[in-house]
Amino acid sequence: MGACQSFREMCDREKNTNVRLSLPAICVVWQTAMIILFGVFIRYDHDSDAHWVEHRKHLNLTDIENDFYFRYPSFQDVHVMIFVGFGFLMTFLKRYSFGGVGFNFLIAAFGLQWALLMQGWFHSLDYTDGKIKIGIENLINADFCVAGCLIAYGALLGKVSPVQLMVLTLFGITLFAVEEFIILSVIHARDAGGSMVIHTFGAYYGLSISWMLYRPNLHQSSPLQGSVYHSDVFAMIGTLFLWMFWPSFNSAICDHGDGQHRAAINTYLCLASTVLTTVAISSLFQKHGKLDMVHIQNSTLAGGVAAGTAAEFMLMPYGCLIVGFCCGVISTLGYIFLTPFMEKRLKIQDTCGIHNLHAMPGVIGGIVGAVTAAAASVEVYGHEGLVNTFDFKGKFKDMVPRTQGGHQAAGLCVALCFGIGGGIIVGAILRLPIWGDPADDNCFDDETYWEVPEEEEEGIPTILQYNNHMRNKDITKSNFTMELESRARS
Amino acid sequence: MGACQSFREMCDREKNTNVRLSLPAICVVWQTAMIILFGVFIRYDHDSDAHWVEHRKHLNLTDIENDFYFRYPSFQDVHVMIFVGFGFLMTFLKRYSFGGVGFNFLIAAFGLQWALLMQGWFHSLDYTDGKIKIGIENLINADFCVAGCLIAYGALLGKVSPVQLMVLTLFGITLFAVEEFIILSVIHARDAGGSMVIHTFGAYYGLSISWMLYRPNLHQSSPLQGSVYHSDVFAMIGTLFLWMFWPSFNSAICDHGDGQHRAAINTYLCLASTVLTTVAISSLFQKHGKLDMVHIQNSTLAGGVAAGTAAEFMLMPYGCLIVGFCCGVISTLGYIFLTPFMEKRLKIQDTCGIHNLHAMPGVIGGIVGAVTAAAASVEVYGHEGLVNTFDFKGKFKDMVPRTQGGHQAAGLCVALCFGIGGGIIVGAILRLPIWGDPADDNCFDDETYWEVPEEEEEGIPTILQYNNHMRNKDITKSNFTMELESRARS
Amino acid sequence: MGACQSFREMCDREKNTNVRLSLPAICVVWQTAMIILFGVFIRYDHDSDAHWVEHRKHLNLTDIENDFYFRYPSFQDVHVMIFVGFGFLMTFLKRYSFGGVGFNFLIAAFGLQWALLMQGWFHSLDYTDGKIKIGIENLINADFCVAGCLIAYGALLGKVSPVQLMVLTLFGITLFAVEEFIILSVIHARDAGGSMVIHTFGAYYGLSISWMLYRPNLHQSSPLQGSVYHSDVFAMIGTLFLWMFWPSFNSAICDHGDGQHRAAINTYLCLASTVLTTVAISSLFQKHGKLDMVHIQNSTLAGGVAAGTAAEFMLMPYGCLIVGFCCGVISTLGYIFLTPFMEKRLKIQDTCGIHNLHAMPGVIGGIVGAVTAAAASVEVYGHEGLVNTFDFKGKFKDMVPRTQGGHQAAGLCVALCFGIGGGIIVGAILRLPIWGDPADDNCFDDETYWEVPEEEEEGIPTILQYNNHMRNKDITKSNFTMELESRARS
Repeated sequence: MGACQSFREMCDREKNTNVRLSLPAICVVWQTAMIILFGVFIRYDHDSDAHWVEHRKHLNLTDIENDFYFRYPSFQDVHVMIFVGFGFLMTFLKRYSFGGVGFNFLIAAFGLQWALLMQGWFHSLDYTDGKIKIGIENLINADFCVAGCLIAYGALLGKVSPVQLMVLTLFGITLFAVEEFIILSVIHARDAGGSMVIHTFGAYYGLSISWMLYRPNLHQSSPLQGSVYHSDVFAMIGTLFLWMFWPSFNSAICDHGDGQHRAAINTYLCLASTVLTTVAISSLFQKHGKLDMVHIQNSTLAGGVAAGTAAEFMLMPYGCLIVGFCCGVISTLGYIFLTPFMEKRLKIQDTCGIHNLHAMPGVIGGIVGAVTAAAASVEVYGHEGLVNTFDFKGKFKDMVPRTQGGHQAAGLCVALCFGIGGGIIVGAILRLPIWGDPADDNCFDDETYWEVPEEEEEGIPTILQYNNHMRNKDITKSNFTMELESRARS
Repeated sequence: MGACQSFREMCDREKNTNVRLSLPAICVVWQTAMIILFGVFIRYDHDSDAHWVEHRKHLNLTDIENDFYFRYPSFQDVHVMIFVGFGFLMTFLKRYSFGGVGFNFLIAAFGLQWALLMQGWFHSLDYTDGKIKIGIENLINADFCVAGCLIAYGALLGKVSPVQLMVLTLFGITLFAVEEFIILSVIHARDAGGSMVIHTFGAYYGLSISWMLYRPNLHQSSPLQGSVYHSDVFAMIGTLFLWMFWPSFNSAICDHGDGQHRAAINTYLCLASTVLTTVAISSLFQKHGKLDMVHIQNSTLAGGVAAGTAAEFMLMPYGCLIVGFCCGVISTLGYIFLTPFMEKRLKIQDTCGIHNLHAMPGVIGGIVGAVTAAAASVEVYGHEGLVNTFDFKGKFKDMVPRTQGGHQAAGLCVALCFGIGGGIIVGAILRLPIWGDPADDNCFDDETYWEVPEEEEEGIPTILQYNNHMRNKDITKSNFTMELESRARS
Repeated sequence: MGACQSFREMCDREKNTNVRLSLPAICVVWQTAMIILFGVFIRYDHDSDAHWVEHRKHLNLTDIENDFYFRYPSFQDVHVMIFVGFGFLMTFLKRYSFGGVGFNFLIAAFGLQWALLMQGWFHSLDYTDGKIKIGIENLINADFCVAGCLIAYGALLGKVSPVQLMVLTLFGITLFAVEEFIILSVIHARDAGGSMVIHTFGAYYGLSISWMLYRPNLHQSSPLQGSVYHSDVFAMIGTLFLWMFWPSFNSAICDHGDGQHRAAINTYLCLASTVLTTVAISSLFQKHGKLDMVHIQNSTLAGGVAAGTAAEFMLMPYGCLIVGFCCGVISTLGYIFLTPFMEKRLKIQDTCGIHNLHAMPGVIGGIVGAVTAAAASVEVYGHEGLVNTFDFKGKFKDMVPRTQGGHQAAGLCVALCFGIGGGIIVGAILRLPIWGDPADDNCFDDETYWEVPEEEEEGIPTILQYNNHMRNKDITKSNFTMELESRARS
């Protein structure tokens, strides 16, 4: 108990946000490590190696049957979601747009390299030569893996340093790869769009870290914890690119042919339905029925999250609409009631509301997947279709839909445990007073980690700037006016 | 006449913009209806059903020949046009960006569900089991169908309530599906990019509604009926995504192979040419040759509209440039001369100038299509090429290019009639005083239907806010100054 | 010397920025010329002509093997890079966003038409009928060609008139096509992603022009030569779309199959590595370790430039990371040390820092390509792979990797010569006082060539506007205040 006390005290010392040594050091060291590990382990796979011509002739394929053409359009859509989608969704704060889109960029670029290694060791290791063989599917999976960490960042937006984010990503990717291996390969759950593996894990990972890093005096930054008109429009760029490309996200690594096709249709329908119920609930709970941009920016995406696990199953078009319907309602109600409750009672500060956008819909998606899998039948899927869709092959060739449903549920539990457990551990590490995180009255402010252009140059002296004048120079109002005047004359 | 008079009076009662009951009600009811209708009618088609493996083997196809791989990249581009393209094009107003991009999102998400049903009944009904079978092509067509309604929204931007937009969409999709069936299936006109079916119909539908909803005192909102610097840059996001992806729009549902290929090339060339003449005319008619953002944002797209019908025909590269040349000139002149004339004389208030961007170029596209079809020959197309391109098969196997030209012209007339007729009827419905539309001095203002963040927090007290101070509190200038001062001190 | 003197004087006469005659004239004349030349020369190729059905059967292909399906997704990504990527990257200036994105749009739309002709004559001329046959690959190459001119525009941003840009583009495309023909066809260097052909040429072309157009009094515009908060966020849209789609840029015209696949992977890895070292160097050289948006917006892209030439070679994943590592360091150091040095000592004013983003990484890319080619071996590529990748066919069938390396180096020299030489000549032409370029105190200001919306309407009277008041009307401060007051009352 005494140790815990002194640990807390150590953590609450005065903040130093100077990352001039730590950030460059961590970037250069880790990038160098990546180069060495890539040199030792990573090579091209059959479809991307120059020996493809021979391989192709051997298998009697044409060039268009290279996996590249099956997956590259979806890969690019996923890539847009990771960098523009997640990035711009986090620009909604009035003075944290640089941090939102910029740190998202940084941790995604680092995370995908580490993900290629971690996932490669588990899934793409060629035992004949001990090398990881990568192709387009590995790139998609690396982007997916990164998504988990970006979701976690959503809870912490504005309250952590870039160094903390790098640490969060290193551990997050590692945990992700282990959790994914257990869920997909050991338990043999199916999770094409990652409702469990990506969203549930990522969200609870972020929420647990946020709980560990609870800031009781965060209200000191509250003037900056909101949006302005244009930052809300920027955030809509993120929302829309996520919304539009989610069918690609959920279908990107599905089976060739009907698998990818069906996943895209299911996700498209799920998302359409979510928009309508989000609008309904948002309007219903506001004075005069006015819509709230926070809901439109976030809850409209919940359907895509929930469609993840069951995306390639025969969920049926009406089933998708029902899932979307529920997610829109639950997610929006979450923003209205749950987020304030969590902040006040559970001490979980969730800047972007990832509990409503990723955690709850992710769990719903896991449950929908388990139920749909358990209800699968030869009549609906056809014999070959059933085997292909659920991959009842190799050592799992004796499985039946009912047992598959149980395995799906087990997968969901694993995702929850890894998210919460991993988050608490990583959160404890991030409480160490060495990471350069901002003080409570300095959160949500790009000034801390970015060179921010001076708005004065544009000629609009803002009240904030006026405040600073008053504070720094102790001048009177008339001085300020005179200065304005003289500047205008010059 | 008396009835008409009292109808008008009823419509002009004081406005109540509270949509707290009507908007949620309509969203939930219609979404529920969609779920039921989808449950009864909609199933997966051959290429997206789990039975694809069997179907594929039966037809001796490989996985890559699933229609998904022919059309999915184009589908995603169209999807971006619908949500980001149309959405951001409508963010140009200084205080209606939320409404522009947000309501666009809402009605598109609703419209595509209803479109899947309406178009499904006409085109994809499997008579063996009475079900609509959907695949990727249906999703593209649903997006197309929605485009018609979004075009109509362009004329009404800032002057209608979300409830009115939902009604407009419901009727618009319905009319669209009927009109499309008549033009494509009954008359057998070809319209791959929808110059007639989408743009001509959508534009005249919107203009007729705008004429019915004429607001004589709209000038009371004129301070808000313009752009600011950053809102114009936001609108360019919409412009560019529309411009770049228009080749995908026009080629998305063309024949596999050369049809899609040629449609993309034709549209690309048409659009390039339009940019140059738009710039020329814009510069020529302004003082000092300055360019007008309104023209650059809109008229540059006219070539894509006009390339729609003839996109898959052998329009020839130089033919595309000529069409683009003319459209840029006509569309820009429309913005300079026709839009003010229409507002003043014809009582048609057209916020986005859809008459110049969609109506005129759409009609031009229809005419170009008719002429190109009538001039088609076996020498240019080859025998098989001619049959494939114009689909001279089944009960239309005896048609020749000359008669096809006539049918194209007939199709254009149908689109015009449905647009104007439908718009007048729906406009009459939308005049009812129950839809929560804003008063004349309250248009183009997001405050009406959105929770707008308070800019004061950022420290910039604007004159608008000052105005409100003066109006509400009857304080003098010095009070305001004192308040500023005191706020600065705190 | 005397002639030179009088030439200089002629060039320094008072500036007239009225382009009301010259801009429309040049647009209309050139567009008309394009129509005529397209009519004489350009036709569809085998894959886009209506005779495809016969051609396809003749070669025993299926529809999906039309080149359209191999390249269209990449084409659309490249298209986004050209119009949104380059366009928005140039919106970072506080008052030149219209010019950044708008003139980019104009010159790209013109340039691609001229590029189709120029490149067509060199590469796609069908000698049987004297026609250029175009397909999707030509569209990609036209976009590439335009990229060279847009890079050059980056150095001149804010300091030239649209008429000058049109001239720059006309000559730039012409030079590009000749240079490209020499490098690719005569010298037989490989350059899939255009490190040499596009980036090195384009950057030195722009820098030479900027040197010729040196403005000693540019500091008079310095209040406008910076960003504001929101313009930096707009620029990030450009950055991210360039970054995300660069794998498509480098793979778009590679060999079908493994060539495209490998190029995408290589570029993806290169770019990821660059982000980390850019952040490291940016943080290391700023006070308090704060990041500079200029570096994040630009230097993170350097890896994509450098990956261009060797994109389809067996660069190996770790090799890509090393290239990216170096580029991030060099490019960021360039922004910190080289750009100020070049402006002060070499009299090269480089608005966007294209020397750091395109010139140096382009040269690095050329060198990496030469080394990688020289080191190629049958063990790594396989026999067929080596022949395919380096195109050792036809009259080059006797070449070996070592000689290929020499040819690559020769190609780099040609690109440098064409860039510098061409830039000096075109720069001399652009110094003529007939092009409507702005005066030194009028640069970086959209007011010169655009109708800019009055911000006053939004209620924020800026100091700039106040300045204008003072200058134009010679009113006193109290007058201004009174006006504000009266406006507020109305």
